[in-house]
Formats: sequence, structure tokens, C-alpha cells
Amino acid sequence: MTRVLVTGATGFVGRHLLPLLVERGHEVHAVARTVPAEASDEIRWHAADLLERRAADDLIAAVAATHLVHLAWYAEHGRFWHAPENLDWVAAGIALVRGFRVAGGERVVVAGTCAEYDWTGDCCDPETPLRPATLYGIAKNALREVLDGYAGAGGPQTVWGRIFHLYGPGEQPTRVVASVARALVASESVGVSAGDQIRDFLHVEDVASAFAVLLDSDATGALDVGSGSGVAVRDVLERLQSLAGQSGLLRFGEAPRRDEPGRIVADPGPLQALGWKPAIELDAGLQRTLDWWREALPANPGT
Amino acid sequence: MTRVLVTGATGFVGRHLLPLLVERGHEVHAVARTVPAEASDEIRWHAADLLERRAADDLIAAVAATHLVHLAWYAEHGRFWHAPENLDWVAAGIALVRGFRVAGGERVVVAGTCAEYDWTGDCCDPETPLRPATLYGIAKNALREVLDGYAGAGGPQTVWGRIFHLYGPGEQPTRVVASVARALVASESVGVSAGDQIRDFLHVEDVASAFAVLLDSDATGALDVGSGSGVAVRDVLERLQSLAGQSGLLRFGEAPRRDEPGRIVADPGPLQALGWKPAIELDAGLQRTLDWWREALPANPGT
Repeated sequence: MTRVLVTGATGFVGRHLLPLLVERGHEVHAVARTVPAEASDEIRWHAADLLERRAADDLIAAVAATHLVHLAWYAEHGRFWHAPENLDWVAAGIALVRGFRVAGGERVVVAGTCAEYDWTGDCCDPETPLRPATLYGIAKNALREVLDGYAGAGGPQTVWGRIFHLYGPGEQPTRVVASVARALVASESVGVSAGDQIRDFLHVEDVASAFAVLLDSDATGALDVGSGSGVAVRDVLERLQSLAGQSGLLRFGEAPRRDEPGRIVADPGPLQALGWKPAIELDAGLQRTLDWWREALPANPGT
Repeated sequence: MTRVLVTGATGFVGRHLLPLLVERGHEVHAVARTVPAEASDEIRWHAADLLERRAADDLIAAVAATHLVHLAWYAEHGRFWHAPENLDWVAAGIALVRGFRVAGGERVVVAGTCAEYDWTGDCCDPETPLRPATLYGIAKNALREVLDGYAGAGGPQTVWGRIFHLYGPGEQPTRVVASVARALVASESVGVSAGDQIRDFLHVEDVASAFAVLLDSDATGALDVGSGSGVAVRDVLERLQSLAGQSGLLRFGEAPRRDEPGRIVADPGPLQALGWKPAIELDAGLQRTLDWWREALPANPGT
């Protein structure tokens, strides 16, 4: 039996990953700054701030996990691309994996990002260089390099899953699919970008299942976590509007588009070769997202 | 007046850098795990282990330096190439520069390494990719990437000096020039590699003067710290033997050569453009090294 420690366990991917790991027969330990009030007793929860080095060291030594899924990172919308907190998470990730290894840990799965790739052109294929333009991408990529080097020099086996554009129930309401779903459910008009950029949208449960597959595989190195299907953001939002039974609420072209490439689509081949495939088609995933917002909205007016 | 904090201050480069910084009018703060017994009162010494996060944070906040020269790293000969301690120094370097910035720090100079470059071919020219093959090179390169990204996102100005093959008085006696100088002074025979590899040897005082120039410049990014002159290791050792008034003590071909490229020579152009030039020719530098060993050896028999 493996004992898995999951960081970022209350985060968007983390909370969907925990039940999958339990299902797969792992002893699951979850760490978060605040333990959820309604915590399943199938999960062993630990409260710790991984940026507090001493607390993190103590936790890692106490749990003595064989496996580690490291999802925690600074994720404040709008700020995370260039925030100095990215540096703290590189240092914390290194300390975490070092401590995990010293305590006997064997295998590590880490959440990377498509922002590690060069975005000066369309992205991504196996030839796309790693040339991150944001501090977030630089920090993730540097952590990957260090852990990959460590894996080759006595460190734990490490696999790195680069997450593309995920969406789904529980997403931060400042992100595009969530903000538009919320507005549509509330019958509010919403300004969005022109939406001609092509992105690879993957439902958060499929992202979580990818990490479960990565954990149980013996894959090493880095691979993409995405659907491989490119879709224009405009099409996604219009589909969302249609599924919500609305029309005319989307004001395309009103919001600026970030200076990012026209196309960011994953190569899911290596992940599929491990037996993973997405279970939730885009329409079904968008429907679930709308349903979630219908439930959530009365409790979260105007968020 | 600038207040400079120097890490690794008792190290090979650090101890030669301190007097240069005093000469240049800086208020010099030096940190080392152990403060030297015969410390100059022109230097403000601080005892701290930078791997002890709390102690390091407290020191950085207390000194409130405007400038930082970060030389400290794990350097145990034979082990440092692949030791996990390299990870700790990435994390410590990040925490150091973050804390320095929070305390108002403005400019950082860091010791990099020629091992950041791709060594699958001869090295190095401006086209040589950064593709380190050792954990040491990977770790240094990752720290450089993170600090460079930070510099572009609100962090301090940062310049990175990639040190090539340095030598001189006080070098660890396990390294090639030092070990051979020691043997020659003791009239002992010594086994060395065939010595056909071409390297860029720079006297440690010239390395130190390069870091002083980098500190006082407004250069940013990364540049090489080397002479630009390639010389076969065999020629250096034969020169050393001749200067020592010895002959026949070098057993070439007896020691293995590390799997490294035939040629590793710096491009000193960018550093020279800042006004730096080496002051110590190879013969003079080797002579000083021999003189140092003649002084040191009676007190260090067989080291």
C-alpha cells in the first residue's frame, strides 16, 4: 500500500483528486493551510503552511509518505503571473521534495504548467522550446529542472504534468469560464475578449484523473495534461450561453486579451499512452459548471 | 555609500573579494558559518548558516544591505557535482534574495558556473546553449533563471558571473592545481590525467576583481568570468613543475579524466567591456601558488 501526501489538497485540482486516490486504494494524507470543516474521514488531513519551513519539515517527517503529489502553489488570479510569491514556492517545493526523500519517499508527481513553454509562437508540440515569459512559468520550469536533476542524482522518481486550461465546478470566479458561467446563471451581461484565441480546455475532474494515472504509472520526466483539442474561447463561451438557455449576454471584444499566443493546445499522446483519457466532453463539462453555479450562486451573490 | 553583504565570505573567492570591496569604499558585511579568528576590523562579520532559514532571515533583515554578493554554495570536492545539497542552496539562494529585496536591497551579484553550459561539445561561445549535465550546473542555472525572472518582476537588479577554472593560493588541496603544487613543493611524485583538455585558468584574485567590477557596474544578466585564453592542463602542470624547480614528478595519464569536453574557455568580452582585465599572468599566478604552498606546507603535512 502506498501512502500519498497531497499538497494543495483544498485547491481546484486537489479536491477532485483526493477521492480518486482513495478509490485507487491509496492511504491519502492531505495538507492545506486550513483543513475543510466537512472533511471526509477517508482522508487524513494535516493543517500546515508549506511556506513555514519548520512546520513543513515536521509534517513531511511525520507522515513519511511513499508518494507525493505536489499541487500547492501561489494562485491569486491576476497576480500570480508576476508575483514574487512564485519564488517562495520554488524554494518550498525544493525543501518539500528533499524532506520527502530524506523520510524515505519514492515517487513524486508535480503540477507544472503550459506557461513553461515558449509562447512567442503557437504552442505546443514536441519541438516547442521551454522558454517561459512569466515569473510563474519561469519558477515552475526552474523547479522542474531541479527536481529532474535530483531524480538523476539519488532523488525520488519524478513526473511532471503540465496543466493547460482547466475549468469546471468550483473554479475561482475571476477566471473566464467561471466568471461567464456565473454571469449567465445570474442573467447578467458580461464583457469578454474577442475570443479568437484557441485553447485546450480540460475539465478539472479529467485533470485530477490524469494526476491519479501519473501517480500510479512509472512515467518520469514531463508531459502535457490536456485534451489535445483546440477550441476558440469564443466558441466555448457561446456554447456556455446556449447551454444556459441565454442569448445576447456576452459582449465580445470588450475585455482585453492577454499578450499570449493564438493557439495553446496540449499534446496528450504521452499521457494517453499511460491509459488516461478524458471522461467529460466539453458540453457536459460546461453543463456541470453551470449546474454548480446555479447551486452556488444564492450563497455567493455578486462574487 | 553602499552596504554590501558578502556570502561565502571565507570561501576561496570571498576572502580575496573582501579587501577589494573595502578599497572601493563599500561598507562590507561578511557572512560565514564561522567567523575567522583573525578578522580584519574593516569587515563587519556575521556568523550564520544560510541553510538555517530563520537565522538567515534575521541576518538579512538586520544588515539591510543595499548590495549583495552571493558566493556561498556547497563545494565539497568530488561530491558537489551530484550532491543533493545543491538543492538546498537553490532554496537558500531564493530565500536570501527575497529577504534582501524585502529589506530594501537593490543589486545582487551571484557566482554562477561554466557548468551551466552544454558540455556535449566544446564550450563556450555566445551560441552555446545552457544545458547543464550535472546537478550542480542544473541547480545554479535554475537559480539564475529564477533570479533573472524576479529581476524583471520587481526584484533587485541581478548580474550573474559564470566562473570558469580558477586556481591560486588557498585553493582546496584536492583540486588539480593545488594538489600538484603541494606535491611539487613536497618533492612528491603525483599521478594526473593525460592533460590534453583545454581549460581557461584564472587566478582567484582576478576572479575576485571581476566580482568587484560586476558589483560596481550596472550590468545585468549573465556573463563569463574567465581569461579567454585556453591552455592544455598538461602545459599548466608542466609549467608548475618547471617553476617549482622540479622535473619528472608528474605521472601523466595515470588519473582518469572526467567526462567533460575537450575545450572549456570563457568569452570574457562582456566583462572586459565593463573595464575588467586580469592582472595576474598564468606564470606569475602559478608562482604565487607555489610560494603559498611553501609557506603552508610545514603546517599542513600530507594534506
